[in-house]
Amino acid sequence: MPRIAEGRPPAAPVSLEQRARRDRIVRAATTIGARLPIDRVQMHDVAKASGVAIATLYRYFPSKTHLFAAVMADQVARLDAEYVGPSLDRDPADELSELLIRVGRRMLEHPVLTTSIMQSNNALTATPLGREVAGVSHGVMLRALRAAHDPEPIHLRLVRLVEQNWYGVLISILNGHTTQEEGEEDLRLAVRLLLTPLPR
Amino acid sequence: MPRIAEGRPPAAPVSLEQRARRDRIVRAATTIGARLPIDRVQMHDVAKASGVAIATLYRYFPSKTHLFAAVMADQVARLDAEYVGPSLDRDPADELSELLIRVGRRMLEHPVLTTSIMQSNNALTATPLGREVAGVSHGVMLRALRAAHDPEPIHLRLVRLVEQNWYGVLISILNGHTTQEEGEEDLRLAVRLLLTPLPR
Repeated sequence: MPRIAEGRPPAAPVSLEQRARRDRIVRAATTIGARLPIDRVQMHDVAKASGVAIATLYRYFPSKTHLFAAVMADQVARLDAEYVGPSLDRDPADELSELLIRVGRRMLEHPVLTTSIMQSNNALTATPLGREVAGVSHGVMLRALRAAHDPEPIHLRLVRLVEQNWYGVLISILNGHTTQEEGEEDLRLAVRLLLTPLPR
Repeated sequence: MPRIAEGRPPAAPVSLEQRARRDRIVRAATTIGARLPIDRVQMHDVAKASGVAIATLYRYFPSKTHLFAAVMADQVARLDAEYVGPSLDRDPADELSELLIRVGRRMLEHPVLTTSIMQSNNALTATPLGREVAGVSHGVMLRALRAAHDPEPIHLRLVRLVEQNWYGVLISILNGHTTQEEGEEDLRLAVRLLLTPLPR
């Protein structure tokens, strides 16, 4: 996992203009990071592609790890905004596994970027940004289970187990250890088994 | 994940002397890698600590990824040699989760090394070494389930699901996303649920 830069926390954008600048930076990192693994991405190139000074870039993102963790946070926020929730007649396990499979497919279209953002998100899990990402993604999963309002402890725990499994399957596909098709079948079975304790 | 070096495959040690030299290299990498993350380990320092020429080191291990994947392979081989199998009165799910918890605890004693060897093993999953590591570790897990002789397809599949879950839990603990205690409880529950389809 990449090391975390020392020093002061990243600045949060306040004005609309600052927000637009931050978004341009994240988009540039997404484009460049789709081609190059994180250790070959140059902060200078990201600054240039987003039209900001290098000092500005470092003020928002003190390291490449922070930058790529922000790409992950943006993808999770977009998923949260797009996901309309389950249809009423759908089995919760099916809903959740098909949601995770859709997200996984989208991520696997850009395997180099996905490796970078997963590594960066891992390295920052224990920070406020990491906790925010975990909170939003768990929220989406709870909505798939129709348990977002007033979830019970068992819901929170099973969502964590499913997430850990999904992560293992995604890494397995990224490595070439399993094919995408086999990984998706594994995930369907694992979600079904892991959700057995849920009240129906 | 680290990139894989191009070029010829690593040499296999043949004579007893060559084998001893290779073992010294792997031990030196284990010691140095317990202190330094893989991107700060210098091949020159590994050569020096194991008393071999740098050219010899590169002949056995064309990259740091190959070197640390070999550390993983050695740990898995040692586990295979040490594991005596389940006692007759033990529930298979208990046996498997306690085995994985013991292995996980040992790995978490050296979190820096564990991160390096997991990354390296991931990068080489699709190579002969990676397949060997997967084969040996699946074999140990099948022994825990008393299914090593003539395993059915369902055994192989569930072992893969459990492995993916264990991987997700270990990463979660390494990141600080869950505590070790919580991760171990998660693993116990996940193994129990994932093994539900096993014939009793």
